[in-house]
Amino acid sequence: MYGFDVTISSAVSAQEQRRRATAGPLSPEELDLMQRYWQAANYVTVAQIYLQDNPLLREPLRREHVKPRLLGHWGTSPGLNLIYLHLNRLIKEEDASVIYLAGPGHGGPALVGQAWLEGTYSEFYPAVTSDLAGLRLLCRRFSTPDGVPSHVSVPTPGSVHEGGELGYVLSHAFGAAFDNPDLIVAAVVGDGEAESGPLAGAWRSTAFLNPARDGAVLPILHLNGYKISGPAVISRDSDTDIEAFLRGNGYQAHFVEGDDPPGVHQELAATLDRCHEQIRAIQREARRHGVFDRPRWPAIVLRTPKGWTGPKEVDGRPAEGTFRSHQVPMSDTRTNPAHLAQLEDWLRSYRPEELFDENGRLVPELAALAPAGERRMSANPHANGGKVLIDLNIPDFRDYAVKVEQPAVIRRESPRQLGMMLRDIYSRNAEAANFRLFCPDETNSNRLGNVFEVENRCFVGRTLDIDDHLSPDGRVMEVLSEHLCEGWLEGYTLTGRHGVFATYEAFAMVSASMAVQHAKWLQEARNVPWREPVASLNILLTSTCWRNDHNGFSHQGPGLIDVMLSKRGTVTRIYLPPDANCLLSVGDHCLRSRDYVNLIVIDKQPQLQFLDMETAIRHCENGVSIWHQASNDDGGDPDVVLGCAGDIPTMETVAAAWYLRRIVPDLRVRVVNVVDLMRLFPVEYHPHGTTDKEFVELFTEDKPVVFAFHGYRRAIHEIVHGHPHVGRIHVRGFNEQGTTTTPFQMVVLNEMSRFHLAAEAIRRVPRLSNRAPDLVAQCEARIAEANAYAREHFEDQPEIRDWVWTDHD
Amino acid sequence: MYGFDVTISSAVSAQEQRRRATAGPLSPEELDLMQRYWQAANYVTVAQIYLQDNPLLREPLRREHVKPRLLGHWGTSPGLNLIYLHLNRLIKEEDASVIYLAGPGHGGPALVGQAWLEGTYSEFYPAVTSDLAGLRLLCRRFSTPDGVPSHVSVPTPGSVHEGGELGYVLSHAFGAAFDNPDLIVAAVVGDGEAESGPLAGAWRSTAFLNPARDGAVLPILHLNGYKISGPAVISRDSDTDIEAFLRGNGYQAHFVEGDDPPGVHQELAATLDRCHEQIRAIQREARRHGVFDRPRWPAIVLRTPKGWTGPKEVDGRPAEGTFRSHQVPMSDTRTNPAHLAQLEDWLRSYRPEELFDENGRLVPELAALAPAGERRMSANPHANGGKVLIDLNIPDFRDYAVKVEQPAVIRRESPRQLGMMLRDIYSRNAEAANFRLFCPDETNSNRLGNVFEVENRCFVGRTLDIDDHLSPDGRVMEVLSEHLCEGWLEGYTLTGRHGVFATYEAFAMVSASMAVQHAKWLQEARNVPWREPVASLNILLTSTCWRNDHNGFSHQGPGLIDVMLSKRGTVTRIYLPPDANCLLSVGDHCLRSRDYVNLIVIDKQPQLQFLDMETAIRHCENGVSIWHQASNDDGGDPDVVLGCAGDIPTMETVAAAWYLRRIVPDLRVRVVNVVDLMRLFPVEYHPHGTTDKEFVELFTEDKPVVFAFHGYRRAIHEIVHGHPHVGRIHVRGFNEQGTTTTPFQMVVLNEMSRFHLAAEAIRRVPRLSNRAPDLVAQCEARIAEANAYAREHFEDQPEIRDWVWTDHD
Repeated sequence: MYGFDVTISSAVSAQEQRRRATAGPLSPEELDLMQRYWQAANYVTVAQIYLQDNPLLREPLRREHVKPRLLGHWGTSPGLNLIYLHLNRLIKEEDASVIYLAGPGHGGPALVGQAWLEGTYSEFYPAVTSDLAGLRLLCRRFSTPDGVPSHVSVPTPGSVHEGGELGYVLSHAFGAAFDNPDLIVAAVVGDGEAESGPLAGAWRSTAFLNPARDGAVLPILHLNGYKISGPAVISRDSDTDIEAFLRGNGYQAHFVEGDDPPGVHQELAATLDRCHEQIRAIQREARRHGVFDRPRWPAIVLRTPKGWTGPKEVDGRPAEGTFRSHQVPMSDTRTNPAHLAQLEDWLRSYRPEELFDENGRLVPELAALAPAGERRMSANPHANGGKVLIDLNIPDFRDYAVKVEQPAVIRRESPRQLGMMLRDIYSRNAEAANFRLFCPDETNSNRLGNVFEVENRCFVGRTLDIDDHLSPDGRVMEVLSEHLCEGWLEGYTLTGRHGVFATYEAFAMVSASMAVQHAKWLQEARNVPWREPVASLNILLTSTCWRNDHNGFSHQGPGLIDVMLSKRGTVTRIYLPPDANCLLSVGDHCLRSRDYVNLIVIDKQPQLQFLDMETAIRHCENGVSIWHQASNDDGGDPDVVLGCAGDIPTMETVAAAWYLRRIVPDLRVRVVNVVDLMRLFPVEYHPHGTTDKEFVELFTEDKPVVFAFHGYRRAIHEIVHGHPHVGRIHVRGFNEQGTTTTPFQMVVLNEMSRFHLAAEAIRRVPRLSNRAPDLVAQCEARIAEANAYAREHFEDQPEIRDWVWTDHD
Repeated sequence: MYGFDVTISSAVSAQEQRRRATAGPLSPEELDLMQRYWQAANYVTVAQIYLQDNPLLREPLRREHVKPRLLGHWGTSPGLNLIYLHLNRLIKEEDASVIYLAGPGHGGPALVGQAWLEGTYSEFYPAVTSDLAGLRLLCRRFSTPDGVPSHVSVPTPGSVHEGGELGYVLSHAFGAAFDNPDLIVAAVVGDGEAESGPLAGAWRSTAFLNPARDGAVLPILHLNGYKISGPAVISRDSDTDIEAFLRGNGYQAHFVEGDDPPGVHQELAATLDRCHEQIRAIQREARRHGVFDRPRWPAIVLRTPKGWTGPKEVDGRPAEGTFRSHQVPMSDTRTNPAHLAQLEDWLRSYRPEELFDENGRLVPELAALAPAGERRMSANPHANGGKVLIDLNIPDFRDYAVKVEQPAVIRRESPRQLGMMLRDIYSRNAEAANFRLFCPDETNSNRLGNVFEVENRCFVGRTLDIDDHLSPDGRVMEVLSEHLCEGWLEGYTLTGRHGVFATYEAFAMVSASMAVQHAKWLQEARNVPWREPVASLNILLTSTCWRNDHNGFSHQGPGLIDVMLSKRGTVTRIYLPPDANCLLSVGDHCLRSRDYVNLIVIDKQPQLQFLDMETAIRHCENGVSIWHQASNDDGGDPDVVLGCAGDIPTMETVAAAWYLRRIVPDLRVRVVNVVDLMRLFPVEYHPHGTTDKEFVELFTEDKPVVFAFHGYRRAIHEIVHGHPHVGRIHVRGFNEQGTTTTPFQMVVLNEMSRFHLAAEAIRRVPRLSNRAPDLVAQCEARIAEANAYAREHFEDQPEIRDWVWTDHD
């Protein structure tokens, strides 16, 4: 009933093993070479984990050859190596372009070792030569201070997938395959990672992979039975159930099982040949005759022992095939002579003397097994996306401007203007086929629907007449999974393409951890000289906390701002355009930028338009500026500064300034608007930050500042710390007060309404102290009045017309 | 090949429809009653979405009877209603205890309507009576200002699952079923939600559900074909593929398909009977003979049209059965008379006059269909967990104390002490069976392994001899999915039990959005008088950024602190115990607390122990206190305050104070340690906050404060804003500087080493200005020296022995 099982499998007869060893496409010579290449790869893997000297055992192993601290994951590595070398064979036989994504990324020494064996590592890191000295250095760097991490990571040649946080290998793989018709993405899925939600949801990416224009993803589900200490759930399933699971997700499963290397080599070689044939047949058919339904893509299920070829037992307890092989099977080799001897036996069991020549180079007949040049998976340019990146052909964003003759009069759904620009980006880059929009089924809801004039939703499967703009050829990627949207886009940009992820603000937190990890990737990439810059990852949030009033509290949360704020300024950017023209300018900037995570937040509801295009451009170039039209300090010293960041806060702030002019005409008020939130940091802290001088020019030296903020209010204090007299900055913002109510009550509940802002300003100006109680009472009366009005005239969206800012200038 | 298809199904012959209508367990009378109950439920659903008056159409429908703003999701509601009333039948026939989790939670009006029909709504909200006036009020409250949200939410009777952020219905369902042997949790999974990663990963919870001691989860996958505008991916699959998918996840699929109500009623009734029988058979077998392998649980696949019984067409375009039924099929009923008439026709098609009596009460023969009392799903006490909550039997945490005779001498892995306490909590509550630990396969790694002395890992499936503490009876829940751990625990606590979620700090961000939503749930629950308090959700992070040095940058990130900080102080708590005794005190407090999300962060590596138990208790009760033993201000006014929060920062701070005493003996230094991070807020902002007086007593009025923080450093500025002279607070903390390196280099890279802190203190004290350059140079020399030492003696963990704080007093 079950497939591979350590107890059963060892019982397979010698005769059966011999039969398996010849029942495949490999000649005895090929088989021998493959086996030896595998030995070399496993040897280099173990050496990295254990050795700091004597890397090829040219002398007997002594305790001081072993690293003081043993780190790394052996368990998954022999499987990763096995797959790698068999893919090499396929690449050479078929001249295929293949990249390798290691889901069990903790098997870093395997992937690093492979890159070293095929020479790429030495090309990228010349100090690590392809000989004995290089191997010694490779070992010494692995998982040591300032060295390379124990998992697959940015410095690993050929990787577009960090092996840290698990769950994303399949979404990255599909993102890499989109619009790369000749590419095969081999995605190894660990049986541990398979338990994670994002991975489980990513299998169904098959419904979005078009065999005519996209490349192929070949998932290889590697079942070795255990996680750190518990069993991997899916590994305990019967083959029948696994076959059903994969079929239900759109795949045909091919099983390769065993613990007899020759038999497994033959089976895996035959299976890869079969899978490649299937992939090419599917693609040929689709490219000749069109795409009519979802093809059944091949997937491989590989059952081999955990820590295969490692110690069978350690201290009398089984190691190979169990969770005890997960990391380092014997950890006290410096102090336990028996374990040291066992390590030496283990290393020598691979016969390094037959694999490497006297200089420590891989012997020529083995080196010949690896593909050459850019066909090496570790050197495939798709895995260094910046190398194949083609600039987007972006139309002039001014062409989509809203005509603003007077500020704060007309209303528009601002994202619509961006939607038109994205539409034309689709058109202009149709041939390059290097732009996609990713969205959880909300493209229309987010007011980006103009893209459907030229582009369809992507769906590979049965379509119906009543479907709306649905086609296997579409490049608008709608799937109800923030994880898939984010993961696909990450894979798409890291392989040298462009895109936008548009989603609901509150639910952007669902994939926040992925955005964090991507920011970390980009940050590390700056330290890796051979990595070329890639397009930024653009996140657009248009269904925001202030106007999710009908959905209620669960839909109200601007938390992604806080998450992005703490990341390094060199890689994250946060933009809060107050209207359509600013959004266009920001959007253009973000789409042209490289190596950032750009977060753009703007509401989708009809909103006041403030700036004409030329003013908007200057404003966005500055990132922050004084809005003289909304101010009455006449360029002099104000009594109070009203700062704002975000569209609703801007509207309330501008209205507060207007209201203050009515009830306290002698109060000099300055309005400062912030588009680029990072501008508020001190420049020492963030490259976009302001100097103290700039800060004082905007916010004065010591005058009170009432600041209305789109996000959680206290975040502003985190940002401005270090600037002069920041204790005078009084912030209103989202304060986790929400419910199903009117938009106006949302600003009331969070104490950010125009009247709250006005009252706060009055309270903070010393010279008003006598009149303050009366004036504040006036403000408070207006809050109550406005609240009642808004409730009664519920249909009067988006705000109370009577109180907009139209009567000055 | 495909199952339900709007075009195919309508073509089913009248004869076939008649056959289906009688081919089931319902007598013609029962069938008629069920159909009418469904009509009543659908009527009340549509009424809530559209009507503000004339709720039973006692007069012709006029425009002013219609709400000004139409919000709500019709599309999913008829299906939710259908399932609800059929479950009612099952409950009555079998006297079953069932709760209902609506994954497509936007169908709020359906669930609210059902609670109203069966009387619970009026019991919980007496103003909403069970008659005409009550129905009018119900309609007026639905999705209106200060009313009830359009989705299933905290105020919805019978709910333990918010229908906002999608993806968690199955994990919540399994969490509710654990240790509830008599409960059946009906979990409706929408075909949209099914695309999300967390949902996809939750199917496999079957590997953790023990039929002998747990209740049952009955998933009902509702395929109605569309999301907001695109097709739902799984809905386009063939029945064969869906059957395979479910089988691969451990279920036997039962299909119910159609658009002929009588036929579907018969099929669904028969199917529910069959599923119930299967569930009971599985349980009977396991309870009699034990659990030997994973049973194959039943699951239902229900294919019915989206917006079933709604308008077939609107303006000549198909509505029923398409995405145009997703929300409100006709949105301009106040301005478009034809649509108003169509709405009236639609409402009258349910024949309200035959469903409700003259007072607007459901007619008796229909009311009799609902279960009574606590058997009503809307009144089942498991869905109001506080009602069935039993206090944990917690041993005296002092019994697990580390004996600390002198501060900062001995080292311990602090979480081990808590692990021993958790072990005894398992033992003491074994009979109540109301405590579980949830962890992504890291219980040992997180140093909580003592629990395995009395408790096993849970796994329902094939076990092997080499497995470690693995049993279907285990209550340590290890699965490599933060989403499952968090979701199960949420479901477990909301149904009245207790637990802890222990995970890696960096990857706690994976489920951050769930923790946010849970905090929102708890916050809203405070406003719902009938909701009884539930146990807090405890999150324990022991693999932290400062000591994930070997895993590298992707594993280093304290972001969950920032996420929790922005939530309302009434529901979130953050604790940073500096050592084992503080951890025990904090742990005890959190396990006894109610209605919070508690975040506890402490490192798992051997660390210095500072406080004996009695001191630790006092310290934790204060949340923050001056550490006189580490200070040399002799209770007087210090020159500088060294503040700290978190274990590594505490160690560095205490060492910095020690070092300062050596190089600047005349400098008066005060050390202040923070356990309860919320204590740093002003009391106006957070209930745990300090008054200005308390703050000044700790940190002085205006002396410089050098603060070492576990998390992202600028977060402290967000917290302390509002206290006196906060510009003098200079924070060091995690600054997104990380790599594979030594623990000491981690604090160096982030400029938080003892020497960095000492140098900062020296720079900030005015009277040292002359000597500062020289002293700072000394500090900097020590940084370089220490760094080199740490690199060379890599094995010398966890820090440089030579420089610990042992020589004062």
